[in-house]
Amino acid sequence: MSASPSVSYSITVRLEAPSYGNAVSGITRAVEDAGGVVTGLDVSGSSRDRLRVDVTIAASSEEHSKAITEELSKIEGVEVGKVSDRTFLMHLGGKIEMSSKVALRNRDELSMAYTPGVARVSLALAENPEDARRLTIKRNTVAVVTDGSAVLGLGNIGPIAALPVMEGKAALFKQFAGVDAWPLCLDTQDTEEIIKVVKAIAPGFAGINLEDISAPRCFEIERRLRQELDIPVFHDDQHGTAIVVLAALTNALKVVGKKLEDVRIVGSGAGAAGTAILKLLIAAGATDITVADYHGVVHVGRADVNGGDGDGELRWVADHTNPGNLTGTLREALAGADVFIGVSAPRILTGEDIATMAPGAIVFALANPEPEVDPDDALAHAAVVATGRSDYPNQINNVLAFPGVFRGLIDAQSNTITSEVLVAAARAIASTVGDGDLNPSYIVPSVFHKDLAKTVSEAVVAAVKGDPAE
Amino acid sequence: MSASPSVSYSITVRLEAPSYGNAVSGITRAVEDAGGVVTGLDVSGSSRDRLRVDVTIAASSEEHSKAITEELSKIEGVEVGKVSDRTFLMHLGGKIEMSSKVALRNRDELSMAYTPGVARVSLALAENPEDARRLTIKRNTVAVVTDGSAVLGLGNIGPIAALPVMEGKAALFKQFAGVDAWPLCLDTQDTEEIIKVVKAIAPGFAGINLEDISAPRCFEIERRLRQELDIPVFHDDQHGTAIVVLAALTNALKVVGKKLEDVRIVGSGAGAAGTAILKLLIAAGATDITVADYHGVVHVGRADVNGGDGDGELRWVADHTNPGNLTGTLREALAGADVFIGVSAPRILTGEDIATMAPGAIVFALANPEPEVDPDDALAHAAVVATGRSDYPNQINNVLAFPGVFRGLIDAQSNTITSEVLVAAARAIASTVGDGDLNPSYIVPSVFHKDLAKTVSEAVVAAVKGDPAE
Repeated sequence: MSASPSVSYSITVRLEAPSYGNAVSGITRAVEDAGGVVTGLDVSGSSRDRLRVDVTIAASSEEHSKAITEELSKIEGVEVGKVSDRTFLMHLGGKIEMSSKVALRNRDELSMAYTPGVARVSLALAENPEDARRLTIKRNTVAVVTDGSAVLGLGNIGPIAALPVMEGKAALFKQFAGVDAWPLCLDTQDTEEIIKVVKAIAPGFAGINLEDISAPRCFEIERRLRQELDIPVFHDDQHGTAIVVLAALTNALKVVGKKLEDVRIVGSGAGAAGTAILKLLIAAGATDITVADYHGVVHVGRADVNGGDGDGELRWVADHTNPGNLTGTLREALAGADVFIGVSAPRILTGEDIATMAPGAIVFALANPEPEVDPDDALAHAAVVATGRSDYPNQINNVLAFPGVFRGLIDAQSNTITSEVLVAAARAIASTVGDGDLNPSYIVPSVFHKDLAKTVSEAVVAAVKGDPAE
Repeated sequence: MSASPSVSYSITVRLEAPSYGNAVSGITRAVEDAGGVVTGLDVSGSSRDRLRVDVTIAASSEEHSKAITEELSKIEGVEVGKVSDRTFLMHLGGKIEMSSKVALRNRDELSMAYTPGVARVSLALAENPEDARRLTIKRNTVAVVTDGSAVLGLGNIGPIAALPVMEGKAALFKQFAGVDAWPLCLDTQDTEEIIKVVKAIAPGFAGINLEDISAPRCFEIERRLRQELDIPVFHDDQHGTAIVVLAALTNALKVVGKKLEDVRIVGSGAGAAGTAILKLLIAAGATDITVADYHGVVHVGRADVNGGDGDGELRWVADHTNPGNLTGTLREALAGADVFIGVSAPRILTGEDIATMAPGAIVFALANPEPEVDPDDALAHAAVVATGRSDYPNQINNVLAFPGVFRGLIDAQSNTITSEVLVAAARAIASTVGDGDLNPSYIVPSVFHKDLAKTVSEAVVAAVKGDPAE
């Protein structure tokens, strides 16, 4: 697995160079010799003898970008000026904003959008609160709620550090499904406090997207909020991941010619995502799943499974998995398995471990940013390999699911999030890859697939309506 | 005080009429005969014998608009179709939305705005949280927080019914000062809960605008949040109103040639706005203020002032006002006063009461929507009259203050909201009316005055910097 230049480590270097002919190509060559890629070059000014050049460079890491800049400064006649990190530049002042949908240019418009006209709308809502779904942002807005306790692969970095991720999430909601979203980064990690806060802010929202809240608190928080609110509550790290995994597995099984109910699945990780994936696969028809965590295979005989460990999730896992009564390590359980799904830790498996799997093996190594096994090593032995990384094919990316899922739930004005609804969303995602396009390196659509969110939302609406009244 | 047609009761009536020449003018005449005003007329379709006409009409109330529609249906040959309320139409789906400021069209952009690039920004913030002011929406965003307990003149209508007002508030923040704002309508009216919720959501915001929260809870809530948060907390119904009243009074006193420290001021109302106005006038140099509430003049001898009534605000009022030791009614206190400021209840005074005031009387009758005294009756006796109404000159409108005040506090990255800061804002508003433009009907600028928010924000920044370190 190589670290290739990525535009996420993109810098723009402003430098002055001599104005003679090959100075610019010398700059480009120096960047390439140092292992970078010039993605843009602009002569932004000049004088008789000198050029001002803005060079945009993709590097493979921050250290690499510094090394490249160092090499540029060594070129004779070149002076390096300001170095701007494009990723950081993009974040200046935040990535989202609020906009008014109504013009406020004159007294007339003000008196309809604000006082005194708005008072009539408020009075109408006081009489008929359900009209908020028509007359306010409750028509279309989701709160993206985190406490910063489990942010991406970074762990417990807290609410302020989580904010750029939540802004990005909100931008994705709007970009892909037209759902308005506002981030709420909470300055508390207490379960009861979080529940109280979300209940308090709920009136102006059509749904709650819980994000980056660590297990096991996330289970309790989601369960209690679903009981107490009449709007959908969805922890994307659990269910979004599960939906996309099921969609990808559905297509991967088609590629290798196996059926979900026949395959032996081994999972690594029994946290938020692992447990949700497990439950959804069972709901979709899987019959033979074995899960390993940090302590090895989860089985009913294990002390920590039986001791009162608080949330009971581990006990549930032990009771509903491992029909072969395996004990021992992940490695041992993996031998002869058809499918591996990892949502755990980096580099816990090697290519040789993958080689012990059944023929036509499917490997989803989703630990972020370093997968459980090097994807190139896995590809030497498995039929289909997927990761969470954007520099390999088959990226398991929650963006495929959450926009369309919320669009559907909001449009259906439903807080019904049963496994039927999740399975329907997964099937919709899988179906956007036509049989003619399906191959081992294309089991999920691109996140930019036109109409994907629409397909998912329509499937969700249909699934919601198909459910018998709760 | 007549109820003139207002565009906030504007309807669009679609009708079919005969196609001969004067059918359309007959429609217009019928509307005018019924007391309405045609503000727009569009022939939107036709056939050989019939026209389809969309008539936009300003009425003076909902009942009036219904009566006008009734009259139209009586015209021979006219069929009334759909009647749309323009104010309600403007509210469909809410008045604000969230927009992404960054493009998300391809993998490169996604990998900078979201994973993996965003992780670097989050890591940087985990190390240096103060950089959130540069790299996130904390640069520029205010939370508009209400519990719906005191919404406009409508009372305790609750969080959902309050939402259109809060959306409007947010739109005004952005329109007039470029401040992003998102409404949070809270499903609790418990003081401690509200404090907890606002503390929890504070990380992603640069300021908190408390709105439409009833007295006396609003005092405690604001005080406690100011203690516990490092971002500015500002209850606009208190301080925004006070700022604009001081600005208007400053200019009104110029018009009549009196000085603040010399005039006798009588106020009606000792709630949120009344108390805040009082405190600001004292800070600005007023020496003789007497306040009346529902029970008459507030004085130290009153039972409810001395009994432990909880929040102590009434006691503070009694201790700091009424140097003449007046007891008795508002009416009695008003005789010979120079200034009346009402933030209380409708129609508690008549023109005769105003006639008892000193020559060059200034009357601010701000009860909403019906002022304490009919403005036309007041104008028969006072030199300067102001209300909160948009259909009279001198509208005391908080929109003159809160956008610029928050812009200044955010730009100064300060939570210092002393009376010096509020007075500076008031002076800035007053100063935008040049001496050459000042007259009894123009004591405050239009809310659409170009650069008003900028002037206010710069005055706030200067006042914040001028304060000695807290």
